[in-house]
Amino acid sequence: MPSDIPQPSFVLVRPQMGENIGAAARAMLNFGLDRMALVAPRDGWPNQKAVAMASGAGRVLDDAVLVARTVDAVAECSYVFATTARQRGMTKPVMTPERAMEVARDRIAAGEKVAVLFGPERAGLENDDIALANAIISVPVNPDFPSLNLAQCVLLTGYEWQRHSVAVPPEITEMAGSEWASAIEMDKLAEHYEDTLDRAGFFFPDLKAESMKRNLRNMWSRMPLTRTDVSMLHGMLRQMVRWKDKG
Amino acid sequence: MPSDIPQPSFVLVRPQMGENIGAAARAMLNFGLDRMALVAPRDGWPNQKAVAMASGAGRVLDDAVLVARTVDAVAECSYVFATTARQRGMTKPVMTPERAMEVARDRIAAGEKVAVLFGPERAGLENDDIALANAIISVPVNPDFPSLNLAQCVLLTGYEWQRHSVAVPPEITEMAGSEWASAIEMDKLAEHYEDTLDRAGFFFPDLKAESMKRNLRNMWSRMPLTRTDVSMLHGMLRQMVRWKDKG
Repeated sequence: MPSDIPQPSFVLVRPQMGENIGAAARAMLNFGLDRMALVAPRDGWPNQKAVAMASGAGRVLDDAVLVARTVDAVAECSYVFATTARQRGMTKPVMTPERAMEVARDRIAAGEKVAVLFGPERAGLENDDIALANAIISVPVNPDFPSLNLAQCVLLTGYEWQRHSVAVPPEITEMAGSEWASAIEMDKLAEHYEDTLDRAGFFFPDLKAESMKRNLRNMWSRMPLTRTDVSMLHGMLRQMVRWKDKG
Repeated sequence: MPSDIPQPSFVLVRPQMGENIGAAARAMLNFGLDRMALVAPRDGWPNQKAVAMASGAGRVLDDAVLVARTVDAVAECSYVFATTARQRGMTKPVMTPERAMEVARDRIAAGEKVAVLFGPERAGLENDDIALANAIISVPVNPDFPSLNLAQCVLLTGYEWQRHSVAVPPEITEMAGSEWASAIEMDKLAEHYEDTLDRAGFFFPDLKAESMKRNLRNMWSRMPLTRTDVSMLHGMLRQMVRWKDKG
């Protein structure tokens, strides 16, 4: 049984090589998608090469719906996308994967069933398949090298689905068991360096000492340091002093 | 020579299989990227399996920079990303590919050199490589099935680069040699159907005729019809009348 998570179904239309069906299953599951339909796979079904390639994503294949015609795969869907690289001479909206998966998310949230058609490896979808679709998804690839394969097309579409359906913070900082240093800790660090460097004769000549100190303080203030970093920086400086004292 | 288009360089660190280097070259060129660096590829360089797999993207391999250490590949870069799936216990920003390529775009636009590190197939980047990076890119995959391979990671990063560096309209409609019908054409179409259906006795009973006509007008107004569609709809109705007249 596929998961209960609302999602589009991905329909592989007349796929040729079992390996590519398996790779598509992996690409789907990478982004939490597990509703696959297969329209008349060339080498029959089940397919051992698909199973071997799918590896940990075998359950996507186990649950795949097998049908004879594209229309059977989308019978219950109220919105169907067709993926295609080239213009087909049909008046139909052409969307980026990003826009398409926004539309899919909104329609699925409203209770609609949505499918995405992917064509066979070599030739892509036929015009009769595309006529079933409400909109086309076209990945904006380099026009001089537009060579996406089936699993890559599934991967990018699944990626966009996931990007629009799961809230992921765009940026976090992994803290590795330490917290950011506080302002007072930063101030003590700056003071430690300033005092020690002053004793070492670093702020020379006198005329420049003030601006040199300001530059140093400014540098510390730019550094995103943890408490662990601050301890280490104190330790480094103390060690230099010890070394000098032994001298 | 790589293209002059400003772009990040993609650094494959100690890649193992030639096929994967070739597939990465294809994935890069799909999104217009052609600056590859290779750090100590396991099977030496050049690699015939890489060339065979790269196919039309062979020039990315021809132009690839070969270096012995990761630091040599990023020597001139002022901002370096490392791609990794797992937490590494280092205090460092962790970004989605989307956020990372926004940062890359802005830094490259400001004249900086930016690189993205990709680790070897099995083990991923080592901590010493990651220590060279300013930020980590982590693709938010399904935690129960996080199985992206090298070329897929390159593909998704390249896709996000392209998405942020090239303006692509999110949705267009391919017009297939016709224009949208104008309001006056739509009005004439509605009138043609209304008059003909009225003669045919469709608007029955009288009590409901007004609301039936309104519903029909409303339906036409919802249809995104081209001039070609409108001609066809006129023709269909005329033919029905001719058929009836022959009766």
